[in-house]
Amino acid sequence: MRIVIAPDSFKGTATNKEAAQYLGNGVMRALKEHGIADTADISLVPMADGGEGTAATFTGQVITLPTVNANGGLTNAEYIYDPATTTAYIDVAAASGLPAVADNLQPLTADTYGTGVLIADAQTRGATRVVLCLGGSATFDGGTGILVALGATPMDQAGLPLRQGGAALKDVANIDTAQLNIPAAAVEWVLLCDVTTSALDAAEVFGPQKGASELDIKALSNGISALVEVTGVDPQLSGMGAAGALPVSIVWLSTMLHGNADHVHLLPGAQVVAQSMGLPDLVAEADLVITGEGSFDSQSLSGKVVGHVLELAGNSTSVVVVAGALSGDLPSNAVGLELEKFNNPKANVQQALEDAGYRAIMDVIN
Amino acid sequence: MRIVIAPDSFKGTATNKEAAQYLGNGVMRALKEHGIADTADISLVPMADGGEGTAATFTGQVITLPTVNANGGLTNAEYIYDPATTTAYIDVAAASGLPAVADNLQPLTADTYGTGVLIADAQTRGATRVVLCLGGSATFDGGTGILVALGATPMDQAGLPLRQGGAALKDVANIDTAQLNIPAAAVEWVLLCDVTTSALDAAEVFGPQKGASELDIKALSNGISALVEVTGVDPQLSGMGAAGALPVSIVWLSTMLHGNADHVHLLPGAQVVAQSMGLPDLVAEADLVITGEGSFDSQSLSGKVVGHVLELAGNSTSVVVVAGALSGDLPSNAVGLELEKFNNPKANVQQALEDAGYRAIMDVIN
Repeated sequence: MRIVIAPDSFKGTATNKEAAQYLGNGVMRALKEHGIADTADISLVPMADGGEGTAATFTGQVITLPTVNANGGLTNAEYIYDPATTTAYIDVAAASGLPAVADNLQPLTADTYGTGVLIADAQTRGATRVVLCLGGSATFDGGTGILVALGATPMDQAGLPLRQGGAALKDVANIDTAQLNIPAAAVEWVLLCDVTTSALDAAEVFGPQKGASELDIKALSNGISALVEVTGVDPQLSGMGAAGALPVSIVWLSTMLHGNADHVHLLPGAQVVAQSMGLPDLVAEADLVITGEGSFDSQSLSGKVVGHVLELAGNSTSVVVVAGALSGDLPSNAVGLELEKFNNPKANVQQALEDAGYRAIMDVIN
Repeated sequence: MRIVIAPDSFKGTATNKEAAQYLGNGVMRALKEHGIADTADISLVPMADGGEGTAATFTGQVITLPTVNANGGLTNAEYIYDPATTTAYIDVAAASGLPAVADNLQPLTADTYGTGVLIADAQTRGATRVVLCLGGSATFDGGTGILVALGATPMDQAGLPLRQGGAALKDVANIDTAQLNIPAAAVEWVLLCDVTTSALDAAEVFGPQKGASELDIKALSNGISALVEVTGVDPQLSGMGAAGALPVSIVWLSTMLHGNADHVHLLPGAQVVAQSMGLPDLVAEADLVITGEGSFDSQSLSGKVVGHVLELAGNSTSVVVVAGALSGDLPSNAVGLELEKFNNPKANVQQALEDAGYRAIMDVIN
């Protein structure tokens, strides 16, 4: 019997690696009780979709360095650098993420400068390819903070640099590249999205979770619209709205340098991560797939880990979806399994996931 | 018999390592003549106090890279990087020193940009601690050249970047940090001073040796005063006037990032170098200490190598002070030894130092 365990992280309670391990422990317990542990082949495949923690699913050196958070406060952030492929894997959430500024959300002025610092650092280590994982940012600056960190400065009509953040972008008239960090800007860009939202819809859809009021959303929409106009990028591409419309700046930067957008790859994160882990082949050969996330609902089916695992399983392979909270429909080959006592203190999560793994396999065996 | 040989460099004629070696050769010759070489324990401890050559007293890789000198001319400069402690040891004199521009001193416009280039490079190699040795600079820019190299731009009231150098600082109204190199700015700073002068007195005291006329000194004083006001740092701290008031910018930079000055350590160079070489213990156990420098006078007792060695020796241990020229008083446990023919061509220096070592030990034996 081949069993694949490919969960997302359970946000705030278990990383994807912990979740896979705990679910696996429960599966093993069940298999041992039935004396069939020897005949089973269990693959643990911690999954991610471009959200926080995606970079850590790739192999390489962990680089830690000082940078700034979304509000400009000094912080340390980690990214992954793989010298073998000269590729850096950077979560936008690492420097510019929500958790660090959750107590003091400033959606109008928050920016991605701190992520740009990581990108510039990666280039000095030899990176020629930068994989940006776009989930979980606290920013709505259209990626202009990264531009500033790489030496490209958004200016107003009078030629003065703009204040940082998305609201100031309403005045953007051009972007000065006199001090551009060419080697960093010229990398191959891979942008991993966990959403399919366009740039112009982004403020409306994601503004509230980043602390934006109705008025703020209007200001941010105006800012992104102005940036789209000045940069001339196509705002409608799937994923352009991710991380506060971050792809707008990167697509502009790369197009400006190369004359075309061939060196920016805006991709669904779940699909890229799954491929890098060999998940499609594993699922194709599996008798049972266990996936899951903190909270499953209808949105989980588009661009998220669980949705992609279900896609890979097609209509044939059995899937168990484990979640702290479950709502919405599943395909006929899948069953949902709600964690018991999931909202209790963190200490119970390991037990709850182990029990879920146990129950998932018992259902199949019986 | 325990003998410690701990000289400074003899400026322009012998490095500290050469001086220690030559003095040691003379000592050995005297000991052999008396048949007591086997019973003697000689320690060579090349010393420095934050002046030119201090970085080389620390162990690590020698990094050489192109940068600019104090007048903006292309040059190569060296610094030491120790990956084991992620510490860079940088002489300000290496890039921004007097010798390279001695024929064309421009005290009003000289700047420390070239030193900033070395600092930025060290950070890309992984440095988290930068030890700046402040002696011998040709600059009087309050360290603002380093700020510019790290992406912080001094601006005038109209928002235009200042011209380089100390004289232009009279117009400084604020410092723009939009493109700050955060990882480089966020290092732990150790500033090694060989003087105790405050920032506001520095132009008066050190201006002349950097080619400043009476009028120039006034202009530089005004510049440093304006910088002190804008940055809000305390100009009176001991050593703030070193290297053209370089610490002013570094203290401001680190305080701005961290909210306090805990990550800048303004220290007497001689003391730090002595400790890193284990000199205090060696001197405590010594029967005789030989130190020296090119020219000894009353200033040599405050913050310089010879003064610190005399301090370590207290009143008990015998000290011989070797110098090309000797003036001023020595404590009762110390004797002065003036080098013979020291002003002759360089070929004689080795011989003169060996003779001095010989004479120093003969005085003790007889």
